[in-house]
Amino acid sequence: MKLSLALSFVVTGASAFVPQQPLTPRSPATSLAAVGVERNPNFAKLIGGYLFPEIGRRRTQYLEENPEMKDRVISLGIGDTTQPIPEYILSGLVGGASKLGTKEGYSGYGNEAGMLDLREKIADKLYKGIIAAEEVFVSDGAKCDIMRLQQMFGAKVISAVQDPSYPVYVDTSVMMGQTGEIDSETNQYKNIVYMPCTSENGFFPDYASMPRADIVYLCSPNNPTGAAATKEQLVEMVKLCKERGSILVFDAAYAPFIRSKDVPKSIFEIEGARDVAIEVNSFSKYAGFTGVRLGWTVIPNNLKFADGTPVRNDFNRVMSTAFNGASNIVQAGGLACLDDDGLKEIDTLIDYYLGNAKILRETMESIGYDVYGGIDAPYVFVKLPESMGGSWDAFQTILEKTQVVTIPGAGFGPGGEGYLRLSAFAPRDSVIEACERLKKALV
Amino acid sequence: MKLSLALSFVVTGASAFVPQQPLTPRSPATSLAAVGVERNPNFAKLIGGYLFPEIGRRRTQYLEENPEMKDRVISLGIGDTTQPIPEYILSGLVGGASKLGTKEGYSGYGNEAGMLDLREKIADKLYKGIIAAEEVFVSDGAKCDIMRLQQMFGAKVISAVQDPSYPVYVDTSVMMGQTGEIDSETNQYKNIVYMPCTSENGFFPDYASMPRADIVYLCSPNNPTGAAATKEQLVEMVKLCKERGSILVFDAAYAPFIRSKDVPKSIFEIEGARDVAIEVNSFSKYAGFTGVRLGWTVIPNNLKFADGTPVRNDFNRVMSTAFNGASNIVQAGGLACLDDDGLKEIDTLIDYYLGNAKILRETMESIGYDVYGGIDAPYVFVKLPESMGGSWDAFQTILEKTQVVTIPGAGFGPGGEGYLRLSAFAPRDSVIEACERLKKALV
Repeated sequence: MKLSLALSFVVTGASAFVPQQPLTPRSPATSLAAVGVERNPNFAKLIGGYLFPEIGRRRTQYLEENPEMKDRVISLGIGDTTQPIPEYILSGLVGGASKLGTKEGYSGYGNEAGMLDLREKIADKLYKGIIAAEEVFVSDGAKCDIMRLQQMFGAKVISAVQDPSYPVYVDTSVMMGQTGEIDSETNQYKNIVYMPCTSENGFFPDYASMPRADIVYLCSPNNPTGAAATKEQLVEMVKLCKERGSILVFDAAYAPFIRSKDVPKSIFEIEGARDVAIEVNSFSKYAGFTGVRLGWTVIPNNLKFADGTPVRNDFNRVMSTAFNGASNIVQAGGLACLDDDGLKEIDTLIDYYLGNAKILRETMESIGYDVYGGIDAPYVFVKLPESMGGSWDAFQTILEKTQVVTIPGAGFGPGGEGYLRLSAFAPRDSVIEACERLKKALV
Repeated sequence: MKLSLALSFVVTGASAFVPQQPLTPRSPATSLAAVGVERNPNFAKLIGGYLFPEIGRRRTQYLEENPEMKDRVISLGIGDTTQPIPEYILSGLVGGASKLGTKEGYSGYGNEAGMLDLREKIADKLYKGIIAAEEVFVSDGAKCDIMRLQQMFGAKVISAVQDPSYPVYVDTSVMMGQTGEIDSETNQYKNIVYMPCTSENGFFPDYASMPRADIVYLCSPNNPTGAAATKEQLVEMVKLCKERGSILVFDAAYAPFIRSKDVPKSIFEIEGARDVAIEVNSFSKYAGFTGVRLGWTVIPNNLKFADGTPVRNDFNRVMSTAFNGASNIVQAGGLACLDDDGLKEIDTLIDYYLGNAKILRETMESIGYDVYGGIDAPYVFVKLPESMGGSWDAFQTILEKTQVVTIPGAGFGPGGEGYLRLSAFAPRDSVIEACERLKKALV
């Protein structure tokens, strides 16, 4: 009988893989008696691990087998920012930390929904005249907010997701018990409405032709496809959600990458959205805050459940009971982001990543692939030729041939099969080097 | 028909009450059609708001009616730290922020369960030889971790709580759908095991005489009673949980206040605890990180659900899917806390608050009240004479007579009725001033 599990640990991002030593229990257990608590059956439904740690695991395994390649690996995988935080925004963070050492500047618990200053600034700078400060909930990030939204929605709702999509929508729906088991043939969970998004429909879901759902998750600019929805598309989606009585959860985490006209940066630019939509957003990609952790969610006062309860009230209960506010240091950084100097710095940062996206697009096109996204988004979505096999095979082949880490489209749901996602968040020289290797290996 | 809700906003802690302007929607809605999504019925079961915002609301209301008292209010209410972060620990936070501005020091997404350095340091400094780094999950705080544990446990478990207790255990159980409706007579939710903790049983629950629960929440040193469980009591509790197949969730957030011998600082000092216990912990009270946000949860590899699944695996899934790691800046501060210089600073801080607790104890005793806690804990729990009425009445009377904010015991569950909690986290001069006023008003 094994005394300890010695689980291997996957470190995402750039950190190294460091397996832990098995533990020597203080008093050797005579048996590994399981407690009498049943495992939550919803967790048994989850297949495999969360996508990004799995990418890290495969990268690590490759490096264990090929340690000489360690310095050659370039990540175009997880959408993780790599450029330092610019000066003005940094001064906000440093100042936020420093003042905690003074009697006047010290602060403890704040409002669980965020500092009023920051809520007002988000409302004023990003949603002027559309959203009030009280409708903005500041948090530690969009991913965490999606879980908190699910917590509020509960087990009885039916969710609709774009296929492919950011895995958190589906995984949290499964955890909450909204779904049935996964179908081993389609690789889809029962009780989730999968809305195909392919090159044929411009990667925008045709919700009208799908069964009604209570909650519709829509991400634009999209992760992973890089598609940015037009105003026309969003008008139609809001109209549909209104007609069908659905709540639209709009994930706008990549909004600052939008440079095209007629591509809304917020769902609340669409008339009527205040009656049906929630917007989830984040400073992660705005200002390189992926590790700093700051986001927000907007819930308009208009939005109500069928019994008339404002959705905002229940979300406020989740925030105050199950969350304790984003770090006061980090919120000080958020305030700096939204000053004019901070906004300028953000523009420069985004320009840099958009430049990377352009290089990736042009490279993959020059190889002869069909390429999507990467214009108003940091992700380039590449259609793989059938000769590459499935997208996990292509991921592995590219890793082995070029030491470039990508993300297989299938990792974002069955609809992503046959595609590869490239992230533009790497440093410029790495992007250029990766492109040269890809050209050599794939042409 | 009202067009906007103009919800009033309660700001906890020292911040001011700032009601928001009602919003003017961009396009006046012609109707406030509710969406067709049913409200999660578990949220309808929750009675009232979360406790601490409610305290803030009453304080605010009092000040609106008595604006001349604004500068006289002293809070012995919410357990919110007030002393600046000491120099060495602060340098960890400032350094953690500053280095994000450099190419070499920048970091994005980290492991969702925390930086390996910090996990190792927590294991080494606080659980040496008992707990391995891989069993430590770093987070943004104990409150948030309790919700994530509930997320993992799911809707089907029965929870047992101390009565009175920190409200988050019960509220999150209700949110998860583990409970029935509240009983308007007992003020207890159906399907929760309330374990009375009163002066008669030394505020330690007699779990053996209660129905079996899947999950037993135990907080020591206790919030709100200030009782610190002895080794003997914890040995018995671990034994009972093992016999009954319960998981013990041990909330050790106030452990650094323990100065007495034979009072364990961690449940893992108890033999066999690795088979049955989870420990939730936090830097909030260690180092004044209430606003900074850093905590951790320990899940030993030994702990398994009835089907043999390691509990740690499912918690890792929650952390990686529904959380994105504590802020890298804040984790740098956590590392500093656990250096020798940081640990010394923490001791000095805790001494200061324990000094406050002593003053509060002695004052309330001198008035003639029965007083509990405040020795190995920052909370003093005062038995109210019947002449004061219920604990909410006493709260109100004391606020009006002395402008001292306390917390009524009933806010922590029906078992807290007849008691008042005083927090030792105020500045020393405020504590002394509050005590003088209480003596005058209550003698």
